[in-house]
Formats: sequence, C-alpha cells, structure tokens
Amino acid sequence: MRGSPGRSSAATVGVDFGTLSGRVVVVRVSDGQELGSAVHPYRHAVVDRVLPGGRTKLPPDWALQVPGDYLEVLRVAVPEAVRAAGIDPTDVVGIATDFTACTILPTLADGTPLCELPEYAGDPHAYVKLWKHHAAQAHADRINETARDRSEPWLARYGGLISSEWEFAKGLQLLEEAPDIYEAMAHFVEAADWIVWQLCGTYVRNACAAGYKGIYQDETYPSTDFLAALNPAFAGFVTDKIGHRVAQLGDRAGGLSARAAKWTGLPEGIAVAVGNVDAHVTAPAAGAVEAGQMVAIMGTSTCHVMSSQTLREVPGMAGAVHGGIVPGMWGYEAGQSGVGDIFHWFVSNCVPESYQKAARQNGQDVHDYLTGLASRQRVGEHGLIGLDWHSGNRSVLVDHELSGVMVGQTLATRPEEMYRALLEATAFGTRAIIETFDAAGVPVNELIIAGGLLKNPFLMQIYADVTKMPLSTIRSSEGPAVGSAIHAAVAAGVHPDVHAAAGAMGRVHENTYRPIPENSRAYDELFAEYRLLHDYFGRGANDVMHRLKERRRAAHGGSAEASTELDEIVAGVRR
Amino acid sequence: MRGSPGRSSAATVGVDFGTLSGRVVVVRVSDGQELGSAVHPYRHAVVDRVLPGGRTKLPPDWALQVPGDYLEVLRVAVPEAVRAAGIDPTDVVGIATDFTACTILPTLADGTPLCELPEYAGDPHAYVKLWKHHAAQAHADRINETARDRSEPWLARYGGLISSEWEFAKGLQLLEEAPDIYEAMAHFVEAADWIVWQLCGTYVRNACAAGYKGIYQDETYPSTDFLAALNPAFAGFVTDKIGHRVAQLGDRAGGLSARAAKWTGLPEGIAVAVGNVDAHVTAPAAGAVEAGQMVAIMGTSTCHVMSSQTLREVPGMAGAVHGGIVPGMWGYEAGQSGVGDIFHWFVSNCVPESYQKAARQNGQDVHDYLTGLASRQRVGEHGLIGLDWHSGNRSVLVDHELSGVMVGQTLATRPEEMYRALLEATAFGTRAIIETFDAAGVPVNELIIAGGLLKNPFLMQIYADVTKMPLSTIRSSEGPAVGSAIHAAVAAGVHPDVHAAAGAMGRVHENTYRPIPENSRAYDELFAEYRLLHDYFGRGANDVMHRLKERRRAAHGGSAEASTELDEIVAGVRR
Repeated sequence: MRGSPGRSSAATVGVDFGTLSGRVVVVRVSDGQELGSAVHPYRHAVVDRVLPGGRTKLPPDWALQVPGDYLEVLRVAVPEAVRAAGIDPTDVVGIATDFTACTILPTLADGTPLCELPEYAGDPHAYVKLWKHHAAQAHADRINETARDRSEPWLARYGGLISSEWEFAKGLQLLEEAPDIYEAMAHFVEAADWIVWQLCGTYVRNACAAGYKGIYQDETYPSTDFLAALNPAFAGFVTDKIGHRVAQLGDRAGGLSARAAKWTGLPEGIAVAVGNVDAHVTAPAAGAVEAGQMVAIMGTSTCHVMSSQTLREVPGMAGAVHGGIVPGMWGYEAGQSGVGDIFHWFVSNCVPESYQKAARQNGQDVHDYLTGLASRQRVGEHGLIGLDWHSGNRSVLVDHELSGVMVGQTLATRPEEMYRALLEATAFGTRAIIETFDAAGVPVNELIIAGGLLKNPFLMQIYADVTKMPLSTIRSSEGPAVGSAIHAAVAAGVHPDVHAAAGAMGRVHENTYRPIPENSRAYDELFAEYRLLHDYFGRGANDVMHRLKERRRAAHGGSAEASTELDEIVAGVRR
Repeated sequence: MRGSPGRSSAATVGVDFGTLSGRVVVVRVSDGQELGSAVHPYRHAVVDRVLPGGRTKLPPDWALQVPGDYLEVLRVAVPEAVRAAGIDPTDVVGIATDFTACTILPTLADGTPLCELPEYAGDPHAYVKLWKHHAAQAHADRINETARDRSEPWLARYGGLISSEWEFAKGLQLLEEAPDIYEAMAHFVEAADWIVWQLCGTYVRNACAAGYKGIYQDETYPSTDFLAALNPAFAGFVTDKIGHRVAQLGDRAGGLSARAAKWTGLPEGIAVAVGNVDAHVTAPAAGAVEAGQMVAIMGTSTCHVMSSQTLREVPGMAGAVHGGIVPGMWGYEAGQSGVGDIFHWFVSNCVPESYQKAARQNGQDVHDYLTGLASRQRVGEHGLIGLDWHSGNRSVLVDHELSGVMVGQTLATRPEEMYRALLEATAFGTRAIIETFDAAGVPVNELIIAGGLLKNPFLMQIYADVTKMPLSTIRSSEGPAVGSAIHAAVAAGVHPDVHAAAGAMGRVHENTYRPIPENSRAYDELFAEYRLLHDYFGRGANDVMHRLKERRRAAHGGSAEASTELDEIVAGVRR
C-alpha cells in the first residue's frame, strides 16, 4: 500500500514560512495526528539595517529577506521533521506551504530572484520585500487617493483602503525608485507562490494572496487606465508583472520535482499544493470552514478570518476575497495591528523593578506574574479604560495614525491594573470588529482562538466575557503548518475538498472558555466606555492623535543634521 | 542693646508645622539671613491605621495626629535651631508659627485637648484631625447641597465648593458620629491657633485659617439657620464651638509665657504672632506681597497663593479671603491636588528595572535619570499629551472624581517620554489656573516658585516655557518657616507691617528661568490639546472618569466579606 494516498499510514507535510523561521509539521491524513515537527530559522532573519555584504545601509521602515533562506528550510527542517515523525518518507503523499504576505520578490522568467544575479545583488530593491516593509506608504497614499477619485469599484472590498504592505504599493515603489530592476523583472512574485514554484517547477498564483494582497476581485485586477493614472510607466504592471494563472486553495500546483525531492528527501512526484497565507490557512486547522466561524489568530497582532456565503461591505475590513479562505465562499479578513506586542511593550517599559524581582523569585515570567495579580480583581475594580491603538487601528477605523490611550489612573493605580486594562482593551477591539461584522450583515456565530496568546487562560476568559461568546481553541500549537498539511491532503486527493479535510484533520477544543454572566454584564458597561472613546478619538471628534504624530515627526525631522543623515541613508540605498 | 528689637543682632524664630515634622529656622530680622535651623519629626507621625495604644483600628480615609507631638517640636527643635544659629537666645525678639490646615482638634475651655483626658483617649474623634482626614466627604456633600439650595452668599468665595477637609465638614462629622465629644468640647480649634495658645496663653483665631477653612467672610460665619438646616443640633456650631476673636496676620497674639519660655529656651515675654497657614505664609518669604505676584509652592501637590486689591469670583478657586495672605488685601488660593506625588507614583510604578539599574550605576536618583533623558528631546517629540488629575482636580474644575489620562502611546514610547508628558501636564495645569485668574479679572503678573520641586531645573524651564512667564525662585529651602519668622518680626514691632518685613527679609532669585520662545510656541499647540481634553473629560462631555470611579468603588465594596470587614472597622472606631 506504500505510495497510496488512501492507506492509513499516509501523511502530508505542512511548511509554515513565518517572519523569522520556517516551521514544518508532519501530519497523518486520516485523523490530523501530528507525528513530528521541526523549526529552522532564516540565516539572514529580517534584513532591516544593512544588506548582506555589509556595504549598503537601509533607510527606516525597510524590511527585506533573502530567498535562499527559504530553500534552506526545505533542505534542513523537512527531513528533520520526517525523521522526528518516525515514518518512512515514502508515506508522505503531499506537501503544502503557507507564507507571510504580502512578501514579494522580483524574478526572471524562470523564477530566479534578481538579488541572486551579481549585477543586482547590491541593490535593496532586488531582494524580497517582507510584509512589514513599510517604506511604500507614500505610494499607497497615491493609490488610495487615485482610487477614491476614480471611484474604483474594488476599493470597497478592502474597507476603503489599500495597505502600503500590499503588491501595488510595493510595485509602484519599485518602479519609481529602481526602474532598472522593475524593467529587468519578468515577474513580481508572492513568496507564497515562489516557494511552490521551487517545489514543483510551476508558477501559479494562489487565490488567497492574489485576492487579499493583489487586488484580484471578480477574476480581474485594477484596470490599465487606473495604473496609468498612477504613473504612465506603471500601466503594464498587471499584464507584464503580476498577472498569471490563479488557482484555488487546495488545488494541486504540480508534482514534487526531482530537485526538490532531493532537497526534502520526499518522494518525487507527490502532490504540491498551491500556496497559501499563514493566517488564512489556519482556519481549516481549527475546523473553521463554515459561515460565521471566526478564527482569531492572536500573537503580536491579531488576524481575524471568517468565511461567509454572502458578500457585504464591512467597514474597515482588510479584505473580502472569493475563495480567500475556503474555495467557494467569501473569505473575510480583519485585524488588530497591536495585541501581544502591546503587552510586550508594557512589560518592557512600564513594569517596576520590584515586580520584575518578585516574578523572578516566583520563577515566573513577568506576564504570568502580572496576570496572576490582575486576575484577583473584579471587573472594573481598577477604574481604568484603555484604547489598544499603540500600533494604530487596522480594522473598523483603518487608521495607522491612531495611538494608545489610558484613562483613569490615580496615585493608587498599580502596574497589574494597567496591564489588565490593556488586555481588556484588546478584547474590546475584537468585540468592536465582531459587532461591525454583525451590523454589516455578516454575522459572527462562533469564535475560535489560535496563536501564541492561547497560553494565557486569563486573557482567554476576558475575551469570552467581553465578546459574550464561548471560545473554542485550536488544539495544535502549529496551526498554520497543520493548515498547510490539510491543504496538501486535498491536493493529494486523500480528501475530496478542504471542508472534508478540515473535518477529518482540523482539531479544536470546543467551548474551552465560557462567558461568566456577571463579568459579561460588567464588561458591557466598560465596552460602552471603550466605544465612546473609540469614536471620540477615532472618528474625527478630536484628531489629537494625528496632530501628536505630526508634531512628533516634525520634532524628529526638524534639525538640519537629522535630515542630512536621512538623505545619506536614502542615497546609500541607490548607491 | 540686648533685648531690643531694633538692634542689628536681633533675630526671630519661625516654626513650620508640616505633615510629618516641625521645621524651625532662626532668621536675622535686619536682612532675612538664615542663621540656623532644626527639624524634629512627630513621634506619632500620621495616625491612620491604629490609635496610640494599638487597640482601636481606624477606617480608610482617616488621618489623625497627637497634639503632644507639636509641643515636642517646641521643646527639642527650637533650642537646637538657636544653638545651631550660634546666637545668644536673648537676641530672639519674637516667635511665629505656621501649620497645615484645616488641622483641627476639640479642646476644653482652657485648651486641653480632649484626647489627653482618660475618658476620651480611646476615641479617635478626640484627636487632632489632620488636613488630609478625608472621612467627612458625605458631610461636605450635604453642606454643598444645602448651601446651593439656599444660595448661600459665601459659596462663591470658595469657587462654589466647600472641601471635606475644612472646619464645617469635620465639625458636622464630629457631631453626628461622636455627639458626646461634640458636647464635651468647648472649642474646635485650628492647630495653627492651638499652638499659639500654648505659647502665649491666649486663644485667638488667625484670619487666614478662619477665612479659608472656617468660612469666615465679611466678618461673619454661615448663619444659624443654615447650620440648623444641616442638623438642628449643629445650629450652635459657630457660636458655641468655633466663633472667637479673629486677628490679622502679623499681629501680636501675646507674650511668650513662662512655661513656653522654659520649653523653648527663649526669653519670656517676647512677641508671639498669631497663627498662619504653611502655604500662605510662604508668600512674604518669597517677597510676594504685591497684587499679581503669584507664588506656587510646588511639592507633592501645588498651592498657588496671590494677593489682589480686588475681589472677583474666580471659577474653581479654593478661596478668596480678605487679609488671607497679607493684611488689607484679598488673598486668593488655588491648587493642583497632585504634582510631585504624580511623579513619585510614576517612578514607583511605571519605570522598568533597566532604568532603575542605570540610574544606580550613574549614582542618580531615578527622577534625575529620567529628567536627563527627557531633557534631550524637543517639545512634542514624544507624541504624548497627559492630564494631571491622578489625585483629582482641585482648581478650575474642583472635581476629586477626575483621574489621570495619557494619550499617544506607541510601541516606541519610552518611560522618560511618559515622565516628561506628566511633568508637562502639571505645567499645563498651572497655566490653566493662571489663565482662569486672568480671565476673571485678577491678573497674574509674575510667577514665583517655592517648594521641593525647585530642585528640578528642567521642570522649572518647562513651567517657564509653558506659562510664558519668567520664573523667579525663592531663595530659602525653608520658605514657610522663614515666612513665619517674618511675621514674628512684625509682631515684635521690628518692621511696621508685613510688606516692610517681606521687603527686608524675603528673598528671591529674580527671573531664574526665562521662557525659550521656540519652546513656548510649541507648547502653545500642546496646551491647546490639553485644553481640549481638559474640557472633554472635565466639563461633562464624557463623564467616564466619574463612572470609572463609581464602578471601582462598587467592585471594591461589592463582596459581603469586604463590607463586613468595613463594618467591623467602623464599629471599632466607636468601640
């Protein structure tokens, strides 16, 4: 029975390409059992200061990666995970990958990254631009203005705003800052699709990244007229650089090539699934493939993904894409740009020595220590209310110029109270998103939590109390990689579609946290306060946050020295 | 020439009775030179948990003192200061004192404190109630409601609100909670006057405490009708308990008694001045006796005092009293209830270990370390704006239910930036008070700083930049005690009046800090933001702070256990 997808020992490999490392998991296709896993960090991690070689400094907001690092994950971590699983490699019937997005690189017609060519290796624009490369904001602003002026129909699919992180902003920056590289590239390729190309030799765009990051809606991209309005030289961006066959999630992109079989130690010819995006691929791993099942992937930030049969305009959503999460349904994405990183900021900057010492004496992490103290209080006992916008607001308001707020400190306010107020503020942020979906006619029926913050049960209870929904929790700590393994099983034909595969292989603890009615009633009152402040600071009644950020930039950039230094850095980018 | 006030070696003794200790200074009357000083802490400090003896627990918000502790200051610190001055005690021609207020005690007709009688020694109500005894809030609320309902004319002299700290609230609490003690007391005496009584054997009320704390306006107190409306048994409060001869500041109350001469080692019969209040007495020590010279005494809180020829209703002032600071002029008082204690709260609760270690390595206080880092930034560079209401708002808004706010945090916000935003918030608070006085027709022409926060030059520069006024600074670090010594010189007849004495003995560094125009322009913009938030949170647009405090109290008091415990404590107070 070796080599047959239907046999009971059949397994698939899922590879999750994150921001700093690749994580590989080997999963049994019959029941989703995780058999083995491995992690391999990227050799160059995030390139945000100096290009490899050390001669070219990068300006602020740049974030690059080196494509060879991704292949190293295939060569090192895939065989390691298979060994750890203790299975015969020939039991593996398929492989699938997911990636951060929009993470994108310029290549030749055969997929060779331009940064691997000696003539371009010294140019930052030849490298992979990581999702968090934020140096194309001016280009995004122009895209949004032009789209609004022209009433482009696709704009509403993105809550009215295209991000500087996405393909068109990064593409326009490339054209205008490095026209030679723009000219030389045959394709501007999502890394999610590039890695699949490396595995099976076929370039095919995945519906998820194309839709959410490539403005691919109703089987078409923004028009040539629109592109020409941005810059005449940009008119061919779709036809010449990003347009390509789009395939659905779970489709087979091709068979594992001999070269990739050698890298990975897996059988040549097994199914390679089309690419996917890390957040969205997590939904089936949590068994969330039905309408109204919202998955919140909670880490440094939170990504909310949910499928629905219906298309609605949800204010401030990050995108609605047909087949974006599960083929055949509308996939919705929303997000909170700061969650775990707000807690991390607080612990790094706002917790006194006495607490840090006490945590050490207890053998506890400072987060756990603060959580323990905070959990002894009743709802509202701290007398605080916060806004969770330290990293801006991604969904509902879509305004990166917003910032954090804390109201209610007294001389008796203690660190654990402010910490709790921040935990609660992020829960209020999630409730604001859920209510916005509900009000737009895309009801949220169930909340399933995935991601690193699952480890804090008190935080989870707050989310249950605040949202007044029972929380289910994903079983795997490797949600994205398991999600990929599910797609590999579909691509290999083991399961007929993603629904069926998610049913067999997705795993969730149901109703792990149930709302405590007394807490929910108290949180209703606090959420009303959150809403008041949310609308006051976020909807134009007082644009103080915008003005504070403008003044901050003016004060930073005000000196002649500072701007000269910046000029030098920028000049260095183009040598 | 010994014993003659006019001789060049003549000196006076000023004694400042603070919250935790008495501070004594010996000052040359000709030129204000400080010759010697001493400090003596109160043996029982602040009694806020258990009465001396250890058997009677106190409820929250209680704060008592033991009158014998004040006499110990006279016996120990006065002789010590005279020795330190290296003068012959017979060179001392007068003594004067100032006190915290309203700090008040029930006595027999001869001035014996009731707490010194065995039958009352176990009752908390028999002790001195310190200014910060805050357990009479419910009584203050009734006084304010009744006064508003009856349109009592004196209410406007206090910005529309009588404090729970003052004589009538404390008196009403005493009547209703301890009627036996209320009945037994012949006088309810400000400690400021009680100590003078002990020195010279004469009970005389000082115009300052009587006006600011005793609602003595236009040579009369609130009417018997008004008092009866509060409680029929309270109708005689003025006639029976607090009404007494009022004397002007700098008047001679009497001669030093033989008993007090023995305690202090000073010559019997020298002038003893009428009492005074610690903040107000500081004005002459800073040479501020003219209209429009505002003195800000900046410590844990800030008290603003200023004289004027004209009477106006300044919104939210703590009081306008004729002769309250300098005889013959209207004395205005305003205040910020939290200043240095907000900075202290921040350093104790919000500064990470790494900063505390770095400060130690630099041999610096954490305040100095944060100040050093903060001072390297330009105005507005931190992108933050704060409200300084952690301890409520005493002046302009007069609302103790308000609380602190910080707007603008990002993941890049550092501790020194939040610290600076708090420093600035208190400066904005002072500017709000100054502008309120200006707008009410009581112009502020000059700002003179006294108090412990003088030690932070960066904070002083912020105040100059924010208020756009040159700051003068008091020379003495013992402002109140020097102010008392000035009044002693007037009482002794060395100088004809407080104006002349302040001219000869008050000492100030003029224009120590001048506004930097570039900073002032930038602060004008930030102050506009402060104003917006001040009015939004402080004037009813969003009463979130009130609601947060209500919820906080409800959450604290909500459990049956908690309220039982409180009942026991309260019961313990009355045995």
